[in-house]
Amino acid sequence: MFRHTDYMQFDVKPEKPDPVYARKLQELLGGAFGEMTVTMQYLMQGWNCRMKGKYKDLIMDVATEEMGHVEMIATMIARLLEGAPATDATQNALGDPVVAAVMGGMDPQQAIVSGGAPTLSDSQGQSWNGKYVVASGNLLADFYANVAAEAQGRVQTARLWHMTDDPGVKAMLKFNLARDTYHQNMWLAAIEELQADGLEGVVAPNDLLDEEYQEHASELWHLSDGPDADKGRWAFGTGPDGSHAMRFRTDTTPLGDLQHGPPPDPKLYVTYDGSWGEPRTPAFGTEKGVVGKIKDVFDPDKT
Amino acid sequence: MFRHTDYMQFDVKPEKPDPVYARKLQELLGGAFGEMTVTMQYLMQGWNCRMKGKYKDLIMDVATEEMGHVEMIATMIARLLEGAPATDATQNALGDPVVAAVMGGMDPQQAIVSGGAPTLSDSQGQSWNGKYVVASGNLLADFYANVAAEAQGRVQTARLWHMTDDPGVKAMLKFNLARDTYHQNMWLAAIEELQADGLEGVVAPNDLLDEEYQEHASELWHLSDGPDADKGRWAFGTGPDGSHAMRFRTDTTPLGDLQHGPPPDPKLYVTYDGSWGEPRTPAFGTEKGVVGKIKDVFDPDKT
Amino acid sequence: MFRHTDYMQFDVKPEKPDPVYARKLQELLGGAFGEMTVTMQYLMQGWNCRMKGKYKDLIMDVATEEMGHVEMIATMIARLLEGAPATDATQNALGDPVVAAVMGGMDPQQAIVSGGAPTLSDSQGQSWNGKYVVASGNLLADFYANVAAEAQGRVQTARLWHMTDDPGVKAMLKFNLARDTYHQNMWLAAIEELQADGLEGVVAPNDLLDEEYQEHASELWHLSDGPDADKGRWAFGTGPDGSHAMRFRTDTTPLGDLQHGPPPDPKLYVTYDGSWGEPRTPAFGTEKGVVGKIKDVFDPDKT
Amino acid sequence: MFRHTDYMQFDVKPEKPDPVYARKLQELLGGAFGEMTVTMQYLMQGWNCRMKGKYKDLIMDVATEEMGHVEMIATMIARLLEGAPATDATQNALGDPVVAAVMGGMDPQQAIVSGGAPTLSDSQGQSWNGKYVVASGNLLADFYANVAAEAQGRVQTARLWHMTDDPGVKAMLKFNLARDTYHQNMWLAAIEELQADGLEGVVAPNDLLDEEYQEHASELWHLSDGPDADKGRWAFGTGPDGSHAMRFRTDTTPLGDLQHGPPPDPKLYVTYDGSWGEPRTPAFGTEKGVVGKIKDVFDPDKT
Amino acid sequence: MFRHTDYMQFDVKPEKPDPVYARKLQELLGGAFGEMTVTMQYLMQGWNCRMKGKYKDLIMDVATEEMGHVEMIATMIARLLEGAPATDATQNALGDPVVAAVMGGMDPQQAIVSGGAPTLSDSQGQSWNGKYVVASGNLLADFYANVAAEAQGRVQTARLWHMTDDPGVKAMLKFNLARDTYHQNMWLAAIEELQADGLEGVVAPNDLLDEEYQEHASELWHLSDGPDADKGRWAFGTGPDGSHAMRFRTDTTPLGDLQHGPPPDPKLYVTYDGSWGEPRTPAFGTEKGVVGKIKDVFDPDKT
Amino acid sequence: MFRHTDYMQFDVKPEKPDPVYARKLQELLGGAFGEMTVTMQYLMQGWNCRMKGKYKDLIMDVATEEMGHVEMIATMIARLLEGAPATDATQNALGDPVVAAVMGGMDPQQAIVSGGAPTLSDSQGQSWNGKYVVASGNLLADFYANVAAEAQGRVQTARLWHMTDDPGVKAMLKFNLARDTYHQNMWLAAIEELQADGLEGVVAPNDLLDEEYQEHASELWHLSDGPDADKGRWAFGTGPDGSHAMRFRTDTTPLGDLQHGPPPDPKLYVTYDGSWGEPRTPAFGTEKGVVGKIKDVFDPDKT
Repeated sequence: MFRHTDYMQFDVKPEKPDPVYARKLQELLGGAFGEMTVTMQYLMQGWNCRMKGKYKDLIMDVATEEMGHVEMIATMIARLLEGAPATDATQNALGDPVVAAVMGGMDPQQAIVSGGAPTLSDSQGQSWNGKYVVASGNLLADFYANVAAEAQGRVQTARLWHMTDDPGVKAMLKFNLARDTYHQNMWLAAIEELQADGLEGVVAPNDLLDEEYQEHASELWHLSDGPDADKGRWAFGTGPDGSHAMRFRTDTTPLGDLQHGPPPDPKLYVTYDGSWGEPRTPAFGTEKGVVGKIKDVFDPDKT
Repeated sequence: MFRHTDYMQFDVKPEKPDPVYARKLQELLGGAFGEMTVTMQYLMQGWNCRMKGKYKDLIMDVATEEMGHVEMIATMIARLLEGAPATDATQNALGDPVVAAVMGGMDPQQAIVSGGAPTLSDSQGQSWNGKYVVASGNLLADFYANVAAEAQGRVQTARLWHMTDDPGVKAMLKFNLARDTYHQNMWLAAIEELQADGLEGVVAPNDLLDEEYQEHASELWHLSDGPDADKGRWAFGTGPDGSHAMRFRTDTTPLGDLQHGPPPDPKLYVTYDGSWGEPRTPAFGTEKGVVGKIKDVFDPDKT
Repeated sequence: MFRHTDYMQFDVKPEKPDPVYARKLQELLGGAFGEMTVTMQYLMQGWNCRMKGKYKDLIMDVATEEMGHVEMIATMIARLLEGAPATDATQNALGDPVVAAVMGGMDPQQAIVSGGAPTLSDSQGQSWNGKYVVASGNLLADFYANVAAEAQGRVQTARLWHMTDDPGVKAMLKFNLARDTYHQNMWLAAIEELQADGLEGVVAPNDLLDEEYQEHASELWHLSDGPDADKGRWAFGTGPDGSHAMRFRTDTTPLGDLQHGPPPDPKLYVTYDGSWGEPRTPAFGTEKGVVGKIKDVFDPDKT
Repeated sequence: MFRHTDYMQFDVKPEKPDPVYARKLQELLGGAFGEMTVTMQYLMQGWNCRMKGKYKDLIMDVATEEMGHVEMIATMIARLLEGAPATDATQNALGDPVVAAVMGGMDPQQAIVSGGAPTLSDSQGQSWNGKYVVASGNLLADFYANVAAEAQGRVQTARLWHMTDDPGVKAMLKFNLARDTYHQNMWLAAIEELQADGLEGVVAPNDLLDEEYQEHASELWHLSDGPDADKGRWAFGTGPDGSHAMRFRTDTTPLGDLQHGPPPDPKLYVTYDGSWGEPRTPAFGTEKGVVGKIKDVFDPDKT
Repeated sequence: MFRHTDYMQFDVKPEKPDPVYARKLQELLGGAFGEMTVTMQYLMQGWNCRMKGKYKDLIMDVATEEMGHVEMIATMIARLLEGAPATDATQNALGDPVVAAVMGGMDPQQAIVSGGAPTLSDSQGQSWNGKYVVASGNLLADFYANVAAEAQGRVQTARLWHMTDDPGVKAMLKFNLARDTYHQNMWLAAIEELQADGLEGVVAPNDLLDEEYQEHASELWHLSDGPDADKGRWAFGTGPDGSHAMRFRTDTTPLGDLQHGPPPDPKLYVTYDGSWGEPRTPAFGTEKGVVGKIKDVFDPDKT
Repeated sequence: MFRHTDYMQFDVKPEKPDPVYARKLQELLGGAFGEMTVTMQYLMQGWNCRMKGKYKDLIMDVATEEMGHVEMIATMIARLLEGAPATDATQNALGDPVVAAVMGGMDPQQAIVSGGAPTLSDSQGQSWNGKYVVASGNLLADFYANVAAEAQGRVQTARLWHMTDDPGVKAMLKFNLARDTYHQNMWLAAIEELQADGLEGVVAPNDLLDEEYQEHASELWHLSDGPDADKGRWAFGTGPDGSHAMRFRTDTTPLGDLQHGPPPDPKLYVTYDGSWGEPRTPAFGTEKGVVGKIKDVFDPDKT
C-alpha cells in the first residue's frame, strides 16, 4: 500500500516557461526509458521477488522513489507550458516567426488533449506501454536490465541537459543525473551481491550449462566482413564468467539443414505443388483417445 | 549489403509436430526479447557505431548471426505446425477432448493469417514493434542493454527447454542456449574492453559527474518499510565505479516544493478558480521581434 | 446495412488553406475522443444492445450521425491542406522563415503517406485503435462512458475553436460544438430514462451490493496529505445513490497481509532461496483424472 | 513523493491456485479499465489540478489508493499461478485432458516472460498503454470519465466474481466491488460539488454555448430506421442541463455541401484529371515576407 | 452523410452457438484484413478521391457495403456466443473436459469486456488500428492494395470456412466469399479502366521513369543462393509494363560506399574516438541570418 | 543464414546535412511501406514458401536485397543529421528563426534516443510493427500484396524526391525509384507465372468458387448516391477472371434478417428486459460428457 505527500522529492522550479523543451521532456516521462518505465519495472520486479529481505526491500525502495520522479517530470512539463502560445491561430502566430517556430516545435496534444500538461507519451507522441517493463523474476537478468535502463536514462538526461539553459531546469536535472548515477552503481553492486550470496552466477540463468553445446558457447561467428572483429577480448582468453575460453570462428559454413516449410494443410490454401508429400499428423502421444483409455482400465497388463 | 544461403546455421528438426509448443515458441521469434529484437538492436547499433574497427565489426558479426536465428525459429514453428488440427470444426474437435485441448492452446492466427506458419508476434499475439530496440549510440549503455537482452533471452529459452520433450527441438535449443551464453560473456567482455580502451567508464555517460549533485549520487532513499534494504553493499562501502561512497538515507523528508500546476490558459478550459493568478508569458529571449532587430542594425552601440 | 449520400451533414468550407491547423484537427478525427471513436463506440453498443426499442434506436441514430462526422473532419483536413508547401525542399523553405515554421508544424505523413489528406491518426501521428471503444453491454456503464466521450470531445473542440480565425472552419465547429452539447444532454437524459424504467440504478452494475463489504462501500481513505480531502460531499451525507452514508477514513493502517509471491517453479528460474518452501499444486477438483472417474462409474455409492 | 508499506490494503489470500483464472484477472490489472488505468488517470488528473484544496486532495487520495490495488491484483495473480503446470511438455499434459485444457486457458507469457507472475497486459496479452488515461484538466469532463471508468471496472469485477468459486478470491473481490461502488458515488458527488461551487455546469466545457448553433444543440437526427428513437426523454421536454428543449428531427436532408477533396499538388501523385482546377495557395497573412516588413519600418504611416 | 437500416445485407443465422468459433471470427472483424480494414480503407480512399465520377462513386458504393459487413460479422460473433460457458468457475468447467477445452479456446474479453459480444480486435486480442488502412490518393497504388486486401480476406474466409460445420455460418460465408470474389474482379477491372482512361500506367506512380537509373530498373540481384531464381519470366523478356527488358544480375559486388555514420555531436555522448573528425554544419542556405538580409535590401547589386 | 559486407548496395552520399529531411526519410525506414516492411514481408513469405525452386529463390533474393535497403536508408538518415542543431537550447535557437524553424521540423528522438541516428519508427514517431507484414502462404494473395507494397513505396519515394534538392540524396533516390519500378514489374510477372504454371488463378484462393453464392459474386451494390458508379467496366462485361459477368444492382433492399444480439447471460450484466427469452445452450455435440461415453463403451450397438 502506498502513501503520498504533496511535497516533491526535489525542487521543480523552471525560471521561465519553455514549451519547446516541454515536448522534449516527454521522453523522460513516457519514453521507453522514462520514469514511468523504471517505476513499473521496479514495482513488478519487487512484487515478483520471491525472497524476503534485502533484495526485495531494495527494489521496493527504489520503485517508490521512481514514482515520485514521474510526479516531478510531469510537474516540470506543466510549468514549462505556462503561458504557451497554444491557442494562437496560425495566422497570428505567423506574424512573429519566432512564435511560429515555437509552435512548430510544440506537442499539440499537450494543449488539445491535456490542457497545458503532459500526456503519458514520449517526445514523438507515442503512448507509454507495458512492454517497456522487464520483470522476469530472475534477479540477475532483471538487474542487468535495470543497469541498462538507468544507463539509457542517464544518457538521455545528459542529452537533455545540453538542450536547455534554464537554471531551474538544470537544477532538477542535476538531481536526476545524480540519482541515475547512484542507481547504476547500486544495481551493479546488487549484481555482485547476488553472486557473492551464491544466488546467481555471471550468465543468466545459472543452469543448463552442461546441457548446451559446449563448442557453441564460446565462439564468435565471423559473418560480416569487417576485419577487426577478432581484435577484442571477446575473441580470445577466458570469458568474464571465468570458465569459457573465447574463440573466433572464421569457417562459417552453415551447420544446419536446408530451410523449408513442411507440406501444408490443403484447406489452408498455401500455394503448393505437392513436392514435399503429405503433412504428418502431430503425435500427441494420446492417439488412443478416451475409448482406448477406458479399455486400458480393464487391462491387467497396464499400470 | 547482405547475402543469404538457404542452409540454416544449425539443424531445425523436430521429431514430431507440436502445435501447442509452436505457439509458445512465438515468444522467441516476435517477443520483446526474441530473435527479431536482437537482430534489429544489433543492426541499428552497428550502423550507428561511429568508429571503424573492432566494436563495429563485432556488432555486425553478431547482428548478422541473429538474423539467421529469426530464420531458424520461424522454420521450427512452421515444422511444429505440420498437420496441426487447425481446420477442424469445433464440434469435430470436441469429439476428442485431447484434440479440443490442443486447439485451445493453439494460436489461431498461425492458421487463419499465416497458413500454418508464424506471425511476427509474441506468444500472446501482440505484434513485434520497433520500441523493443535499444540503440542510443553510447556503446556502454547499449552493451549493458545487450547483456540484459541476452540474459532475458536465455532465461526464456531455458523455460521453454522444460516445456518440450522433443529431442529435435531440444537439440536446437541446446544451440540457442549456448549462443546466449556466449553472447552474454561476449558483451560483458566488450564492456571491459570499452573501459580498458578508455572510451567509457562504469557509469554511462562518462560525463557531468561534476555537475550533478554529489550528495544525491550515493544514497539509497528508504521509502518503503522493508527492514533490510540497508543490508546489501549498495548501502555501504565504495560503489562499483570505485569513486562513490554508498550510503543509506533514512530521513526521507521531501526536499522539494509543493506539487502544483501553473495557472492555465483560460482558452484551454482547465477548471480553475484563479487562486494562482495569471499565467506568465514564456520568455523566448527574442521579445523585440523583427522590427526591434532592424532598429538594432542602425544602432552603433550594438554588435 | 448502411446507405450514403455524397452531401455532407453540414458545410465544410474553410475560407483559406491552413496546413498547421490541418494537423491539429487530426485529433478530432483519429484521437482517443475523435469522431472515429464515438462512431465505433456507438455502433458496437448499438449492435450489442439486447432490447428492441428506444435505446437501441437512439444509439443507432447517433452512431450513424457520427460516421458522417468522420467524413466532415476528413474533408476539412484535406481542404485545409490545399496548396500546402509540402513538397518544398528544406533549403527553399528556409528562404522564408514563415514557410519554414509552417513546415515544422505540419504532419509529414499527410503529404508522404496520404498525398494531401488525413491519416487515421491523432495530431501526434499515433494511429487510431480499437481500444478507444467502450461497449460493455451494460447500458448504464456505457452511457456514462458516452457522456464522458462527448464531454472530452467538446472540450477538445472548444480548444481548437480558439486556435483558428478562419470563419469557415469556425462555422463547422459551431455545428460540432452544438452536437456535442446535445449529445451530452442526450446521454444524461438516457441515463435518467434507464433508471426511470427500472433497468439500471445509480451504481453499475446494479447487483452484488449485498455481497460486497458494506463498510468499504462508503469511505474515502486518506492516503495523501492534502488537508482538504474531507471538505466535499463525497466525505459526508448521503451519496448520490441515496443509500450509502459517505465517510472519511483517516486511520489508514493496512488491512491486508504481507505482500509476497508464492514459491516459484524451479524450472522457471526465478531467483529464490527456498525460504517459502515448495509450491502447492493447483487443486483443479479433478485430481483423480480420467481413470479415477471411470472407477467411480462402477461405484454404487457415487451419484 | 510516495511512501510504501509491504502490507497490502486488504487480504489477498486465494484458497487454491487457479492458473486459468490468473489469466482472466489480467484484465483488472492491465486492461483498459484495470487498476493501472485508474491509478495513472487519477495521478495525471491530480498533478494537473490547478486549484489547491478539496478537489486536488480528493483525487490524490484516490490515486494513491489505486496504486495499492495494482499491487493487490498483481499479487493475487502470482498466488493463483502457484504450482501451475506451466513447464509440462505438451505430450505430458495431454496425458490428462484436464491438465491439457487448463494449459489451453493459461497465459503463456505469465510463465515464459514473467516466471509465474503477471505481465502488464490484459487478459488477451495486449500490453497496457498510456492512451487509456483520460486527464484533460477540465474537472467536469474528467470526473465524467472517472464515473465511467469505475462503472466499467465494477461491471468487469462483477463478471469475474461469477467466474470463480474460491472463497479467498471472492473475499478480495468483495472489497474491490465495494470500493468501485464508493468511487462511483464519490465521483458523482464530486460532479454535484463542482456545479454547486459554480466551477462547472452540466455540459463541458461551460462556454461557447452562445457561439454554437442553437438549433443544432437540441435535436436528435433520425438516421437509422428503428421506429422508437423518439420515445425517450432525449427527444422531448427540457434537457438535463435545464436549458435546452429536446427535439426529434425526422427531416434528414443533408445541410452541407458536396464531399470532395481540393485539387492536389501534382508532385504528390494523387490521381487527378484536372477537373477541379489548380490548388489555391495557403494564405498565411504574411505574404510580404521579411523584405516587405523591412520596408514598413521606414514607412511613416506604419506603426 | 450515412443512413442505416436495422436489416442486414444478408442473413446471419447460426444454427447453434459456438464460442470457440466466435473467437476465430474476430479475425474477420478486427484483423488486419477484416471488415473494419476494408471499410475504413475504402472510405478514406473515397473521401480522398480528387475526381468527380465513376471512380469515386465506385469506391463509395463499396465502402458503404463493407460497413454493413462489419455489422454482419459483429452480429454473428454475438450469436455464436449465446449461452457460452463464460461465467463458469474453473473448477466447474473442469468437471467436464469438453467444457474446459472450450473455455481454453475462448476469447476471455468477449465475456469480461463486452458481455458476450465482440471486441474491436483480431482473433488474438490485438486491437484494430488505423495503420491497416492504405489510402495514398494514387488510385493505381491504392487499387493494387485493394486487390491485395480482398485476396487476403478471401483466403482467410476460405480457411474459416473449413473450421465450421454450422450450416447457418456457412451460408453467411458463402455470401462473404462471393463478395470477395466480386471485389477482387472489380478492383482488377478498375485498374484496367484507370489505364484505359490514361490516368495511370502499370508502374505507380507513372513518373520519374526517366529520372531513375535505367540499368537498375530491370535487374534481379542474385543475393541468396537458391539456384532457380532466374527461371521465371521476371528474369528475362519484356516486363508487364511493356517497356523494361528484365534481366538477372549475378555479379553482386556492392556498388556503394562503406557504411558508417558521421562524426557525432559530443553533447549527445555517442561513443567516438575522433577518427572521423568533426561534424560538418548543416548548410541551410540561409547562413547570413536576418541581419545579413537586411543589409542586402540596401545593396543595389542584389535582386 | 546470412552474411554481410560493410559496403552498401549503392552510394549513400548526401552533399549536405539536412535534419528536416532526415525526419521525413524515417517514413521509408520504419513506415508502413518502408524498407523494414518489405524486408520482413519477403523473408516471412520466403521462409513460408512450400515449394523448392524459382518462386522461393526469387523471394529470398529480393528479401536479402531489401535488408540492404534498410541499411542504406538508416545510413542516409544518420548522415543527414550530421551537425544538426539538436543540442541548442530553445532560447539560443530562437536567436535565429531559421534554426528555430529547423528544430520545429526535426524528430527529437533522433537526438535524445538515438544520438543522431534513426529510430525504428516512421516520420511521425510511431514505431514499426509486425502487423505491417503480409505473408499468408498463398502466393497469389501475397504477390498482390507485394505489388501494392512496392507501388505505395514508390509513390512515397517519388513524393520525397520532390522534397529535397540535394544531388547526393537524389542520386540514392534514383536507385530506390528504379528498384521499386523493377520490383513492381517483377511481382506482376510472378503473378502471370503463377497462373501460367497452373498454381493459382485470378481470384485468391482458387477454390470454393462453386460453393459461394454465384449471384453475389458478380454485382456491385449501389449504396451511395454517386450517379456514375455503373460507368466503369466493373459494372458490365466479363470480369478479369474471364468467367464472371459483371452487373450493377440498384435494388438495395437488404436480404438479411433484423440485426439483434441474442439473450445475454444474466451474470454478465448486459442490460436486458427479457424480451428475447433465455439464452440457448451451445451444442457441443458432446452433451453426454465422460460418463455417457463410458457407458457407450459397454453398449454393443456403438462403434
